[in-house]
Amino acid sequence: MESQSSSVFCNFASFYFAIKMTNSIKDLFNKILAGKKPENLYRPIEYILMQSGKRLRPQLVSYASRMFGGDEDGALHIAAAFEMLHNFTLIHDDIMDKADVRRGEPTVYRKWNTNIAILSGDALAVMAMQQLHKLRCDPQTIIEISEVFTQTALEICEGQQYDLDFETRDNVSIDDYVEMVRLKTAVMFAGCLKTGGMFAGADTESLAALYDLGIHLGIAFQLADDLLDVYADTEVFGKAVGGDIKDNKKTFVFLKALELSDSGQNKTLKALYSDKEMEENEKFMKVKAIYDSVGVRKASEEAIMNYSKLCYEDLKRINAGDEKKKELVDLVKKLQNREK
Amino acid sequence: MESQSSSVFCNFASFYFAIKMTNSIKDLFNKILAGKKPENLYRPIEYILMQSGKRLRPQLVSYASRMFGGDEDGALHIAAAFEMLHNFTLIHDDIMDKADVRRGEPTVYRKWNTNIAILSGDALAVMAMQQLHKLRCDPQTIIEISEVFTQTALEICEGQQYDLDFETRDNVSIDDYVEMVRLKTAVMFAGCLKTGGMFAGADTESLAALYDLGIHLGIAFQLADDLLDVYADTEVFGKAVGGDIKDNKKTFVFLKALELSDSGQNKTLKALYSDKEMEENEKFMKVKAIYDSVGVRKASEEAIMNYSKLCYEDLKRINAGDEKKKELVDLVKKLQNREK
Repeated sequence: MESQSSSVFCNFASFYFAIKMTNSIKDLFNKILAGKKPENLYRPIEYILMQSGKRLRPQLVSYASRMFGGDEDGALHIAAAFEMLHNFTLIHDDIMDKADVRRGEPTVYRKWNTNIAILSGDALAVMAMQQLHKLRCDPQTIIEISEVFTQTALEICEGQQYDLDFETRDNVSIDDYVEMVRLKTAVMFAGCLKTGGMFAGADTESLAALYDLGIHLGIAFQLADDLLDVYADTEVFGKAVGGDIKDNKKTFVFLKALELSDSGQNKTLKALYSDKEMEENEKFMKVKAIYDSVGVRKASEEAIMNYSKLCYEDLKRINAGDEKKKELVDLVKKLQNREK
Repeated sequence: MESQSSSVFCNFASFYFAIKMTNSIKDLFNKILAGKKPENLYRPIEYILMQSGKRLRPQLVSYASRMFGGDEDGALHIAAAFEMLHNFTLIHDDIMDKADVRRGEPTVYRKWNTNIAILSGDALAVMAMQQLHKLRCDPQTIIEISEVFTQTALEICEGQQYDLDFETRDNVSIDDYVEMVRLKTAVMFAGCLKTGGMFAGADTESLAALYDLGIHLGIAFQLADDLLDVYADTEVFGKAVGGDIKDNKKTFVFLKALELSDSGQNKTLKALYSDKEMEENEKFMKVKAIYDSVGVRKASEEAIMNYSKLCYEDLKRINAGDEKKKELVDLVKKLQNREK
């Protein structure tokens, strides 16, 4: 009985903190941007920061900080810095990927233009760094947090470059792909968790575990994303499936299917990925038929499960009570069973 | 006699420090970039950092630091940070301005492509920030230097956006233009001088004077640049004149000529700037004829002289001995009489 009510309380508290974080971040962004000029630099930044994204990265900072008793409002500046860094990467990635729509709205470079998107992305990256200078903690900790933050930012650039390189490479291995995902996606999760812990004064062992948890969580998150692109329920997913197949993206699902297929299927799959004429839906159905026949769904789910197991191992290494870890355990479970 | 030999020594010392800084910066860049991957991210960065630019910004950091007895090697990381920030802006500006050549070589986006130029610019900006974390001084000073650095970077983005906005605006005043130049060009000079002084522990009054000196020096530098585009000796200048006129750039010379011209000349000048058919050289000669007849060269030289005078006023406010200021006095003189 006691454990049940404690669990209800924990969920309620978690919900409360999530809502509070989302509102505080929004208030902070409004405050930062109020009256800033020129319009063409700051309106695109306002536009993307005010879209209702998942705010997953700020929540990760908040989870890790509260786990070690960190002042919740203080860590807000780290949360904001990572959310801004994330949105900076979206603005620039959308130019590179020629993406028209993001979160159901036109992308910045489509709504304004490429020059404005380059420049407002640049400004947003700088503004992200500025948030870290506003942290109220000892100067040495601010510098160490900034070091993790800039290293994260640099690795994200490396990951995006590998992703661009993969478009024209036909020898991408699954290891190459996972390394790209680690850099492009997972280090940001890891950076959020680690810096949240650093702000709250967590011990070295816990910081290493938080970082590893972020890496494994981030990879599981991306593999789930790759799988959903083929097998999601469109109603729940909130967007059309098949985008990666349409764009010939070398995802985990595609690379795993190449590995599992016989030489005939392998050849057909590669041919489908270089066909520039075939109608979109026909191509999707044909690729999916091979995916189905080689059992790539099950193989992907197993890989996601393996990364989730690593997450639970990492969680054990964090020196905090079980009830303090509950939010992160719930998050791992949620990502493990992602439907959107 | 004593003053003469001291002056010779000062020039020799100045020359020695300039060469030493140039070599140290190059060594540092080589060290930072050694073995970094992916190639497509780091080779463009290496390419632009190894070009023989003026290294003016590192010299400014060095002047200010040495003026207050700062450890020369220590300030190198600030010098490197500003040089990297400067080159980051060049990579992204060249995409926006569709510039094919920079320092006699193809620009990054032309040699590689736009996506690689966006991404390697992003990475370079992050690497610039990382240099500041390597400073050997007390953590609070590192944070304060980082604050000046990020504020500088943000203002440069604002300046570049104003510059882009001016392309389609036909009501740009000289005040608007000078404000744009302050943001796009002068704050970097000011940031270099101020942070060099901060590193060496200069007093508040001197830091304010160093900052103001950078602003006035930066504006004089740009106005001289605008003037050289029309009146330079091509042999000495090292590049063709008339680029701004060809690109319909609303420079100080153009805006001042509009101010000085009668309504007929004013109309002709505006018509020439919107003519998309006219042969390049013919257009240059016609615009220059108006410039000559309204006396814009003299007016520009007077404006540059006025900013130089402000520089000397700023120099007086710096609490250091005259012999310590000599390098900066020489620099003001040199920029005042720029021929290239």
